[in-house]
Amino acid sequence: MANLEIIKSIARPTPSKIVLLVIDGLGGLPHPKTGETELETADTPNLDRLAAQGVCGLLDPVGPGITPGSAPGHLALFGYDPVTFNVGRGVLEAVGVDFPLQLGDVAARGNFCTVDGAGLVTDRRAARISTEKNAELCQLLDGQVIDGITIFVRPVKEYRFIIVFRGDKLSPEVSDSDPQQTGVASRAHVALKPGAKATARIANKFVAQARTTLAGHAPANMILTRGFSQRPHWPTMSEIYQLKPAVIASYPMYRGLARLVGMAVLDTGTGVKDGLATLTKHYNDYDFFFLHFKGADAAGEDGDFERRVRVIEEIDNSLLALINLEPDVIVVTGDHSTPAVLKGHSWHPVPVLLYSKWCRRDQVTEFSESACLHGGLGRLPATEIMPLAMANALKLTKFGA
Amino acid sequence: MANLEIIKSIARPTPSKIVLLVIDGLGGLPHPKTGETELETADTPNLDRLAAQGVCGLLDPVGPGITPGSAPGHLALFGYDPVTFNVGRGVLEAVGVDFPLQLGDVAARGNFCTVDGAGLVTDRRAARISTEKNAELCQLLDGQVIDGITIFVRPVKEYRFIIVFRGDKLSPEVSDSDPQQTGVASRAHVALKPGAKATARIANKFVAQARTTLAGHAPANMILTRGFSQRPHWPTMSEIYQLKPAVIASYPMYRGLARLVGMAVLDTGTGVKDGLATLTKHYNDYDFFFLHFKGADAAGEDGDFERRVRVIEEIDNSLLALINLEPDVIVVTGDHSTPAVLKGHSWHPVPVLLYSKWCRRDQVTEFSESACLHGGLGRLPATEIMPLAMANALKLTKFGA
Repeated sequence: MANLEIIKSIARPTPSKIVLLVIDGLGGLPHPKTGETELETADTPNLDRLAAQGVCGLLDPVGPGITPGSAPGHLALFGYDPVTFNVGRGVLEAVGVDFPLQLGDVAARGNFCTVDGAGLVTDRRAARISTEKNAELCQLLDGQVIDGITIFVRPVKEYRFIIVFRGDKLSPEVSDSDPQQTGVASRAHVALKPGAKATARIANKFVAQARTTLAGHAPANMILTRGFSQRPHWPTMSEIYQLKPAVIASYPMYRGLARLVGMAVLDTGTGVKDGLATLTKHYNDYDFFFLHFKGADAAGEDGDFERRVRVIEEIDNSLLALINLEPDVIVVTGDHSTPAVLKGHSWHPVPVLLYSKWCRRDQVTEFSESACLHGGLGRLPATEIMPLAMANALKLTKFGA
Repeated sequence: MANLEIIKSIARPTPSKIVLLVIDGLGGLPHPKTGETELETADTPNLDRLAAQGVCGLLDPVGPGITPGSAPGHLALFGYDPVTFNVGRGVLEAVGVDFPLQLGDVAARGNFCTVDGAGLVTDRRAARISTEKNAELCQLLDGQVIDGITIFVRPVKEYRFIIVFRGDKLSPEVSDSDPQQTGVASRAHVALKPGAKATARIANKFVAQARTTLAGHAPANMILTRGFSQRPHWPTMSEIYQLKPAVIASYPMYRGLARLVGMAVLDTGTGVKDGLATLTKHYNDYDFFFLHFKGADAAGEDGDFERRVRVIEEIDNSLLALINLEPDVIVVTGDHSTPAVLKGHSWHPVPVLLYSKWCRRDQVTEFSESACLHGGLGRLPATEIMPLAMANALKLTKFGA
């Protein structure tokens, strides 16, 4: 965290504005037939113009060869070393649905699932029940007190929900019950450290009661849990950067991550145009905006090259609304790569462009993996993009005499 | 300091010679009309030839986005991590005027200033009084003993001077009296840590006496102080690199910095030709020369693009004197960027060229920001240039079995 300490010591508030646009899973790999990646295939006149007027490069979210999850990928972009700043899945989901997590609470992610008569998991997602059905079932499980610990259960989306344990001496060092495969039974929770035995016992009792409560509710007749974790004590972006930051994201997890680093959460819709309308509406109220679009990552996970291309084109198409606001600094990048040919996150570095009046332009005239390789930012850790954005917004004073 | 430990373990003395030429504030930004930086605009046949025969790159003095002061910028070039090796302004100024600082002394930087009848600062630089007048006034303040502490006062240049407190149990943890603005009174010195109360009290008494002594000497009728600090205990360049190093610099601060890392200070004049004459004169006496030229930085701070171009051309023009000495390694770079359009230091990476018989040449044939981007050294922390210079001078043995 040495670097954050330096930034903290030289950051100052100014009226200048920074927009960090994250196209989730932006980096790709070439289509076998054309030899061009999704971003290279897409027609992106606005991104290309920003690239031409700005400076480009390639970011390593965690390090060469490391495929990041969504949390490390984003934390790095916010300037938080993703190895030092670790957050569990349960906390991420809980803050993502605005659950008021208290210090000491233990949060876990839950799935409704289907089990057969022998108790073996047949569907880890309970036939993707509706969010409405999910909410009904959560009410059945919510509010129990087991061994003095209160347990909150809240729906997230479809088959996903959160469990929050509240009370004295809870520990997050508890194993998952989710076996991550079908045809086997859910696992008993095990204490991963001696101090976690009580929490594991309570979690096992909770799962046992849920099995009884849900018996008649197939396909959602059982639950699977994972990612037991506690809310971390982190410095906020306001403390580090002297910024007034806000997030515009339609997916709960990204709002939750942003909340963990102290961003205000703005209401927005699910479309790209909704995001830009929200930005425009609140543009005068904040000086840093994290604008998140999920579609390119989802298409990559589905292995859908063409849809990734279309999503990128749709974002490019809406960019004038951002450009016309004339932020002092625009950064466009991704939190990791999600090449359609790999159908999942990957380790490949992510294209980045930084546009500002004070950047030192390079020769790049196209926003693409191959062009960014020759950009003026070079290849750098994703944690460096915030210091660069801050510098280009003239929000950092000199370091040292 | 891990890296310095490695270098120290493999460095060996040899007759080969290294010249590190620092063009202060070398990096720039394009002129709005031409799209070319100062270095790109300047006609630099000698630097271009060295670049063509050597290997080029871009240096980050502290890190991406971080604008360095002069001290961190230079310490990085000497191989000292500028975050670990911190030095206060008072110490820097004191060693820069050859004041024989002892361990335990506390040094501060002083300004003569002008205050009105109400004690409010009207000119933080006392109408830039002459260095001669400064020396007269320093004599009036020098040599007092307050509460058992002896206080030395010595002129630096124009309105700037140094104060050195010598005696038992002094602490550098004292706030500045300089309010950094006009229209307000100077501030009382405050102890920043409990152990600094006595030092703060003595500093306040000294300032009060100075006010009385200077009452009739308007425009220099008061003083402002800042940068209380103590001389650090650092390993010298001789200890780390087995070098016999010398500095050739006309500005006191750079001589002072060099002295802190153990360089011999050579007398020289203020011009570029003076510097090269000094190098030639002492060439046989040392094996490492830090040759510093200030003009390009000063022109950048003044926002004078054309003068920066001329200064760079003047340096290039004098380079044959250096090249004809045939040093084994020549490094040309800057301690940071000072683009004329920003009128100050900036965070942009700094061009570097390294010429030696043993470098692996790249395709760069011009010494410029844009050409260096594609150089064989890539983009690297400035602390790496000394190991590279040492290696190219064949002064480093193998690491590990």
